[in-house]
Amino acid sequence: MNRAALRTYRLTLAYDGTGLVGWQRQAAGVSVQALLEEALATLEGSPVPVAGAGRTDAGVHAIGQVASCSLRRPFDPGVLRRALNALLPPAVRVLRVGESEPGFHARFAARGKIYQYALATGDVLGPFEYRYVWHVPRRLDAAAMAEAAALLEGHHDFAAFQSAGSRVATTTRSVVRSGFRPAEPGEPLWAPPSLAAPEAASPRWIYEIAGDGFLRQMVRAIVGSLVEVGTGRRSPADLARILASCDRRQAGPTAPAHGLCLVAVLYDETWRGCYD
Amino acid sequence: MNRAALRTYRLTLAYDGTGLVGWQRQAAGVSVQALLEEALATLEGSPVPVAGAGRTDAGVHAIGQVASCSLRRPFDPGVLRRALNALLPPAVRVLRVGESEPGFHARFAARGKIYQYALATGDVLGPFEYRYVWHVPRRLDAAAMAEAAALLEGHHDFAAFQSAGSRVATTTRSVVRSGFRPAEPGEPLWAPPSLAAPEAASPRWIYEIAGDGFLRQMVRAIVGSLVEVGTGRRSPADLARILASCDRRQAGPTAPAHGLCLVAVLYDETWRGCYD
Repeated sequence: MNRAALRTYRLTLAYDGTGLVGWQRQAAGVSVQALLEEALATLEGSPVPVAGAGRTDAGVHAIGQVASCSLRRPFDPGVLRRALNALLPPAVRVLRVGESEPGFHARFAARGKIYQYALATGDVLGPFEYRYVWHVPRRLDAAAMAEAAALLEGHHDFAAFQSAGSRVATTTRSVVRSGFRPAEPGEPLWAPPSLAAPEAASPRWIYEIAGDGFLRQMVRAIVGSLVEVGTGRRSPADLARILASCDRRQAGPTAPAHGLCLVAVLYDETWRGCYD
Repeated sequence: MNRAALRTYRLTLAYDGTGLVGWQRQAAGVSVQALLEEALATLEGSPVPVAGAGRTDAGVHAIGQVASCSLRRPFDPGVLRRALNALLPPAVRVLRVGESEPGFHARFAARGKIYQYALATGDVLGPFEYRYVWHVPRRLDAAAMAEAAALLEGHHDFAAFQSAGSRVATTTRSVVRSGFRPAEPGEPLWAPPSLAAPEAASPRWIYEIAGDGFLRQMVRAIVGSLVEVGTGRRSPADLARILASCDRRQAGPTAPAHGLCLVAVLYDETWRGCYD
């Protein structure tokens, strides 16, 4: 066995969160972290801790999660990618592997993340889409939702959108983009096009948020509140009031996990609005 | 209860075949037919037999299956569609309902069907695609496969591509289209776009076949044989020899079910090349 210095790798991952307990290793259930650590331990011959940039919840998907690990065995990045994909289940794929500077830590080095949340408002949601898109079969006021979404941009205390029971040093975060818009053709990238009939056309919507960090279930609490704006239960200005209250009870319900996807993790060299 | 004459309905269905035992009711496992018959019996208050145009196998998907049934309770077609979708699991969706002429039988009235089979040849198959696309991580000779596919067009005895143990009156069928081609952007309609990295680009291919009828596992045996042409194991002319042999042992292996999708069922009014 090669006992040369550790090499550090950066892995870009996509996964279908359906049926997984999320990124982080749990006492019960299958986590992405445990799957990756087991696959890496098989290749290394000893335990390999893996750090993930975002602790996605159970059921949340990713097309741009980033993880880091260090290995004593030297691997060509392409070989490592193929070996990991051979060992992982098909719902978890390593899209890219790069060797990174020693000490690179996917979470500590992350400067920001981009999440997208997909909604469909039509009458029928296709059988290939329901795992990836939240079906809200109502007419939504998209202009009001877009207006409300934009109010969240900036440096704010997001405590009102943090799940109860969380403990973090600070609940202040910078959100550089918060937008609600119709999905473009082919969006979201992780769900197939709608199969609904024209008379029951299934419009899709994307809520996209980019920021330096996210509190627990923050994106889902925001989406739950935005949908209340869309149905007319609240006004866009209410969203600013919810934010200012710093009180989770003021916000709307937590939107389901399956509409959410971690799209990209931003690092210094990419933190200029471009995706990884 | 309204005891007026029976009304006959035509249902257009899409389903994700993952985890289903196929169209037809079986002693064990969940079939599309049983799910539909149970939902209709709930609405009618008594058993309702349902006829499906295509008996898709376990794991095969549909975006254009057609079924027929007759009900004593009068239903507006839109109401029937919504009621069925409320009762069915999200993996089975009724896309359209129309009232049809009395006596309409989805299978006996069908004049043809269109199937598509999706293949991906890249290094990495995305985590959202693997249920819908057969991953063949090899370089395939697409021109040879297209040439071989075209040889199947016409009126032929397809016994060489019929699963062993089948009993049908005749194994002669008319195939009006048999083509192998690169997938267009957004194809196949039932699978999300590839997430593979550019350096491991995941080309996708579609085999499409339209004909007046299909033998058991015929499309999958054809695809298994075409892939052998693609890998160079056989020549395009071999496919004509396999066809002429009428011997299943001459053909290639049966391709997996999950790449196959029943795209459309053609009836008299639509049997001019257009999809339902």
